[in-house]
Amino acid sequence: MTVNGAGAAERDAEKIWRALDGFRIEVPSWGFANTGTRFGKFVQGGAATTIEEKFSDAGQVNALTGASPTVALHVLWDLPGGVKDVATIRELEKKYGVRSGSINPNLFQDQEYKFGSIANPSAEIRGRALAHLLDSVEIGRALGSKDVSLWIADGSNYPGTQSVRRRIEWMVEVLGATHAALGADQRMLVEYKPFEPAFYHTDIADWGMALELARRAGPKAKVLVDTGHHYQGTNIEQVVAWLLHLGALGGFHFNDRKYADDDLTLGSIDPYQVFRIFHEIVSAREDERAEVAFMIDQSHNLKGKMEAMVQTVVTAQELYAKAALIDQVRLAELQDACRLVEAEECFRGAFWQDVRPIVREWRVARGLPVDPLKALAEGGYVERVTQERSSRNARSVSSYA
Amino acid sequence: MTVNGAGAAERDAEKIWRALDGFRIEVPSWGFANTGTRFGKFVQGGAATTIEEKFSDAGQVNALTGASPTVALHVLWDLPGGVKDVATIRELEKKYGVRSGSINPNLFQDQEYKFGSIANPSAEIRGRALAHLLDSVEIGRALGSKDVSLWIADGSNYPGTQSVRRRIEWMVEVLGATHAALGADQRMLVEYKPFEPAFYHTDIADWGMALELARRAGPKAKVLVDTGHHYQGTNIEQVVAWLLHLGALGGFHFNDRKYADDDLTLGSIDPYQVFRIFHEIVSAREDERAEVAFMIDQSHNLKGKMEAMVQTVVTAQELYAKAALIDQVRLAELQDACRLVEAEECFRGAFWQDVRPIVREWRVARGLPVDPLKALAEGGYVERVTQERSSRNARSVSSYA
Amino acid sequence: MTVNGAGAAERDAEKIWRALDGFRIEVPSWGFANTGTRFGKFVQGGAATTIEEKFSDAGQVNALTGASPTVALHVLWDLPGGVKDVATIRELEKKYGVRSGSINPNLFQDQEYKFGSIANPSAEIRGRALAHLLDSVEIGRALGSKDVSLWIADGSNYPGTQSVRRRIEWMVEVLGATHAALGADQRMLVEYKPFEPAFYHTDIADWGMALELARRAGPKAKVLVDTGHHYQGTNIEQVVAWLLHLGALGGFHFNDRKYADDDLTLGSIDPYQVFRIFHEIVSAREDERAEVAFMIDQSHNLKGKMEAMVQTVVTAQELYAKAALIDQVRLAELQDACRLVEAEECFRGAFWQDVRPIVREWRVARGLPVDPLKALAEGGYVERVTQERSSRNARSVSSYA
Amino acid sequence: MTVNGAGAAERDAEKIWRALDGFRIEVPSWGFANTGTRFGKFVQGGAATTIEEKFSDAGQVNALTGASPTVALHVLWDLPGGVKDVATIRELEKKYGVRSGSINPNLFQDQEYKFGSIANPSAEIRGRALAHLLDSVEIGRALGSKDVSLWIADGSNYPGTQSVRRRIEWMVEVLGATHAALGADQRMLVEYKPFEPAFYHTDIADWGMALELARRAGPKAKVLVDTGHHYQGTNIEQVVAWLLHLGALGGFHFNDRKYADDDLTLGSIDPYQVFRIFHEIVSAREDERAEVAFMIDQSHNLKGKMEAMVQTVVTAQELYAKAALIDQVRLAELQDACRLVEAEECFRGAFWQDVRPIVREWRVARGLPVDPLKALAEGGYVERVTQERSSRNARSVSSYA
Repeated sequence: MTVNGAGAAERDAEKIWRALDGFRIEVPSWGFANTGTRFGKFVQGGAATTIEEKFSDAGQVNALTGASPTVALHVLWDLPGGVKDVATIRELEKKYGVRSGSINPNLFQDQEYKFGSIANPSAEIRGRALAHLLDSVEIGRALGSKDVSLWIADGSNYPGTQSVRRRIEWMVEVLGATHAALGADQRMLVEYKPFEPAFYHTDIADWGMALELARRAGPKAKVLVDTGHHYQGTNIEQVVAWLLHLGALGGFHFNDRKYADDDLTLGSIDPYQVFRIFHEIVSAREDERAEVAFMIDQSHNLKGKMEAMVQTVVTAQELYAKAALIDQVRLAELQDACRLVEAEECFRGAFWQDVRPIVREWRVARGLPVDPLKALAEGGYVERVTQERSSRNARSVSSYA
Repeated sequence: MTVNGAGAAERDAEKIWRALDGFRIEVPSWGFANTGTRFGKFVQGGAATTIEEKFSDAGQVNALTGASPTVALHVLWDLPGGVKDVATIRELEKKYGVRSGSINPNLFQDQEYKFGSIANPSAEIRGRALAHLLDSVEIGRALGSKDVSLWIADGSNYPGTQSVRRRIEWMVEVLGATHAALGADQRMLVEYKPFEPAFYHTDIADWGMALELARRAGPKAKVLVDTGHHYQGTNIEQVVAWLLHLGALGGFHFNDRKYADDDLTLGSIDPYQVFRIFHEIVSAREDERAEVAFMIDQSHNLKGKMEAMVQTVVTAQELYAKAALIDQVRLAELQDACRLVEAEECFRGAFWQDVRPIVREWRVARGLPVDPLKALAEGGYVERVTQERSSRNARSVSSYA
Repeated sequence: MTVNGAGAAERDAEKIWRALDGFRIEVPSWGFANTGTRFGKFVQGGAATTIEEKFSDAGQVNALTGASPTVALHVLWDLPGGVKDVATIRELEKKYGVRSGSINPNLFQDQEYKFGSIANPSAEIRGRALAHLLDSVEIGRALGSKDVSLWIADGSNYPGTQSVRRRIEWMVEVLGATHAALGADQRMLVEYKPFEPAFYHTDIADWGMALELARRAGPKAKVLVDTGHHYQGTNIEQVVAWLLHLGALGGFHFNDRKYADDDLTLGSIDPYQVFRIFHEIVSAREDERAEVAFMIDQSHNLKGKMEAMVQTVVTAQELYAKAALIDQVRLAELQDACRLVEAEECFRGAFWQDVRPIVREWRVARGLPVDPLKALAEGGYVERVTQERSSRNARSVSSYA
Repeated sequence: MTVNGAGAAERDAEKIWRALDGFRIEVPSWGFANTGTRFGKFVQGGAATTIEEKFSDAGQVNALTGASPTVALHVLWDLPGGVKDVATIRELEKKYGVRSGSINPNLFQDQEYKFGSIANPSAEIRGRALAHLLDSVEIGRALGSKDVSLWIADGSNYPGTQSVRRRIEWMVEVLGATHAALGADQRMLVEYKPFEPAFYHTDIADWGMALELARRAGPKAKVLVDTGHHYQGTNIEQVVAWLLHLGALGGFHFNDRKYADDDLTLGSIDPYQVFRIFHEIVSAREDERAEVAFMIDQSHNLKGKMEAMVQTVVTAQELYAKAALIDQVRLAELQDACRLVEAEECFRGAFWQDVRPIVREWRVARGLPVDPLKALAEGGYVERVTQERSSRNARSVSSYA
């Protein structure tokens, strides 16, 4: 007899099906476009350039996985006309069967933001940054989108060149004004990152700073955790536990990394860490969990864009399913009795279970392809869009040339 | 003619003298005792074993530098009898001319704390930890000492073996009860540390967690920054700026490190970072600065204990003097105009100035030895105490044997 | 139908059985003794103190797992009498059914090594270090042990205090003389470590330095990889691949870590990394693999000593079994065709397989307990030795007190 | 009397003048062009676009500092026509008074190098990479340039997607063929880097790998140390000491960093580390020192290009001058006597000396501007080229849009 008898196997399947039925992860529009490093871009013929192509790709991912019904939008790249573009987006939502997800302002690309946006010493430039934030809030409201997701890239490159402290006050002001514009059903998510593109100091460097700014802004502001935005060695699941404890966790940007903000596919480097993060979510209260948005934020420089995205959703489902298998009651008993080895085996026993067969059964039952990656490969979608799009895809541009 | 004409030189000297007159840094009693790594201790014949020897050494450091009038006490090692030992300490204060500084409870050494102290799943053990904290508060009050300084070593070594989240609530409870016992002039400082002695999670891992716990405890709780307790790459001066901004910086444990919590002498690895930290202090408001206690927390495994301590105080004075030289008005102008190279040169020009001649002049004017390290070497103190103490100093004990 | 049909399942079982039949991992005598951090030791009543107790414990681990027939010895702690103790060891080998494994000299604990052993500026102290190394070689020869395993803890704590460069030459001299004494069947393994117990520079800091010293010493010197002895982010499997390529990989000290040299149980933090390391071994040539010794080097501060050791051997077997499942031929094809996602899925598909049922079957077939941890818990061994030994186990000694 | 009496001051000046007379540091052509991060480029109107503009800028830096008579060239960007462009370069050398320095092939930007260049599984692509390397060698010979400087960006982003080990052999082959083509006075420098643009493994990740490949290639191959290409915490000066010891140090790419390969201006983050690296050079034998090329490799995203380059050369001169002040004889005595604190004070006493007045005197004596940054600001060069060039300077292009 094996460890999991028939009854146990059924209970496991039940847990996993329930978990998968409730699991949603948002895909980013920019994850379908060509991206690269400062040293250059490796262009993919099938990469999406237009917003319609991005909706098409997102729709395809959702059709294959059933788990990604929304797509995150990037204001500057996807709605260059601002709120005027909303009608177009509405059409695309209908056409491709995916809705708009979080709205992402861009405060890092324009030349005027060279020395910062909302933390820029110039009141005029801070004003322009605020105007862009308010536009983003308006777009979000018009689209019925819940979250405006703020990644502030501000910072400085050399000690002494900016006042870390004065810049705090400038951020407080702009974020407060942004919060004031939020509609009743809107939230703003404040992301943190220790470095890049700024290399000496980033104005919102860690969860502590993001939390302070969110609180000062108001009750609809929460913290966004990007799994690649931490120092080496940071215990990310502990940060997640704290944010849940404080009622301040708004959501995640998922990806993986080995060194810096490498934006690799989720679970490709350290799947056990993803499992541990999911455990904190799974073991939180229902109402806490409801407030946590799952989003993918990756840069697929080498992998095929569509392949990488489908693979990511599948991996996320599998790791979430594993976390759902943990026997929370028994684990809590063992933890509180300090029976360390037993607690650990109870915990990671779930990680060792091969959940793929059950996940496949769930897919079949839900009318989804049993193997989304294979279905993608065999469906001809990538070949078709590559043919359509490849002439438009420009050659690589290095930041050096 | 040099860059600094006669007028400038005078102004520099004035700034430095004023800075040094106001500069105090506390020495730790355990910095005079034999310490080591888990692999063993290299014993020094002159190391202090008794509390009287520690007071004697601290008094000598203060006599040589004029900058360390207080000595941090460690309850378990220095007041094994608890509040009953206060009278003895009072005598030693008078005899050696240094006062008691911060009171440091010990919640990591007893066998009962194997799985934690204030975050232990056992209510009974948490109760013992609280009792020790209350004793420490009482000792502090009896000694007229301002700060009870809490380093909580709690944590876990393996994922899944403890509930990160439940432990938060236990800590909140104990720290709240400790705060309630503080006298009108007492503070409690909450220290954070990412790892060691726990290796998977430390319950108070970063400044954000320390700040939350301090706030929940009450207004007399502040955050203590140990410069060695950060992930690689953390911008410590930014954390300092934030804590000052939030009115939550209680003080420092100074030391230096290259890798982990190496507890090396201040400025021995990265003196420019110390200068940047001092700059945040120097440029803070007078009332903010008054709340920030400077303390040394180092482990002199190889250097002579007395030499290392005197060297540390002297280095701290010199780096603080450099920070005091920064032209704050001009720097702010250049920063706000984003004239980066000029701002940087204004900032680090102060670091490049050789302040040692001015510091020597200040020492002479204040009746102190012109060269404290030389005075120590020539004064015969180390030779004398080595003779007196060496028979008592045991051989090394490795944590492995 | 599942992904692995009946034929595939049989082939998987065959691969795993073959892998497990060839899998041996050495346990360290010091892993059964009380250990701690510089802040103190949490004493276990059942911890081994004498060499007989350590052999007894090692024998028990091997009886339960069938995979650890040798025990690494530490000269200073296990053979304080040097080669004179060999006869005793021989008796213990017979009595407890485990043989002596690698011989580990100790060049870090004696007071004379305060400033280094084989890299000490004093020729006299280097001479003593050499003498200890030669004793270790002699012990190894007398015991018929293959490897003398050198961890050199030498280094310095502060820039400028030692000449990094002159110390290289001193090491070359001593290691050459040690190599000259090796018997025909003996090897010396040179370990590297970036920091701790030295905090500014460690004389053998990385694999490049260890390799240079091994080569200079002679052909019987190889490099030893301790998985906890790397900078954050180091790609350890790549170092393994290079050492295999160069014919210079002598073996491993296995453990896990999150931050520094945490000496946690193997796979407890990042099991996917262990799988990747095993993949490099499994995919190496037979003759290369034969030269690679697997050893455990952990410090079980909180977990029960016996539990932790059995758990480690079991985890190592399971992760090795997973690596053995990789379809090497198919993987190479996909890699060379740069079909990234398919290659990755081929690779980590093996990691996701739950090998525990097959490993259990193998255990039964080999006459071993089906669940070694359960067998340990139920066998009463720990209870018995705890009763016998607990009176001898001293209280914790912190490096601070 | 002060520490430095009149005689000491004279001796110091003599040491510094001699050091500065022998100090040369090469500037990179790409350091004058617009660069950025993957998130975008902040364009400078005065940035150089053509090779003539780059020579003009380099000539100006050398005119101001007298220390940068050569400019590193990047084959793809500066000699797009290959060896046919040599005649043009020769003209520019004469016109602007600076010579061609190291030749830098580009094996990372072309689409064909998506999965690697010299380590690509495709023999055809490796052949193209080799052809480019041979072109670079020919260009170097035609220009009379000593060094071909190889940064190989090859690697992979995800475990399992490439064979780390097979790729080693492919590199060995190509580098051997490149070495075979070197002229009698040519060298090839092999650079290493742990990550970026590849994020899981970089084929030449550390100095050990670079050294193996250089040795296999032949005696004219040496290792190039880029100070930004190390894991956090790496003791770079120790790597330098080892490479000097092994006769394998070919040169440096200087820059500074706080986190990853940030390419900040030299000494802006950790000037004491630069001083320690220079100390290893200064204390090496004359003939060893002669083989070490100093080159700048920085990315001035925010600072003015010309300002940043002049500032870097000046900082390098000052830190080198400080290192030259160390009393090597006394230091060696103190180190070998293990008088730690005295050795450290002897060492860093040189760092604390303000060498700027002596450096200024040297400049005047050598007919150079006393303050190069001020001379740059007052000379009108930047204003002039900004007017000439700004219309040609394109807007920012993010790797995301």
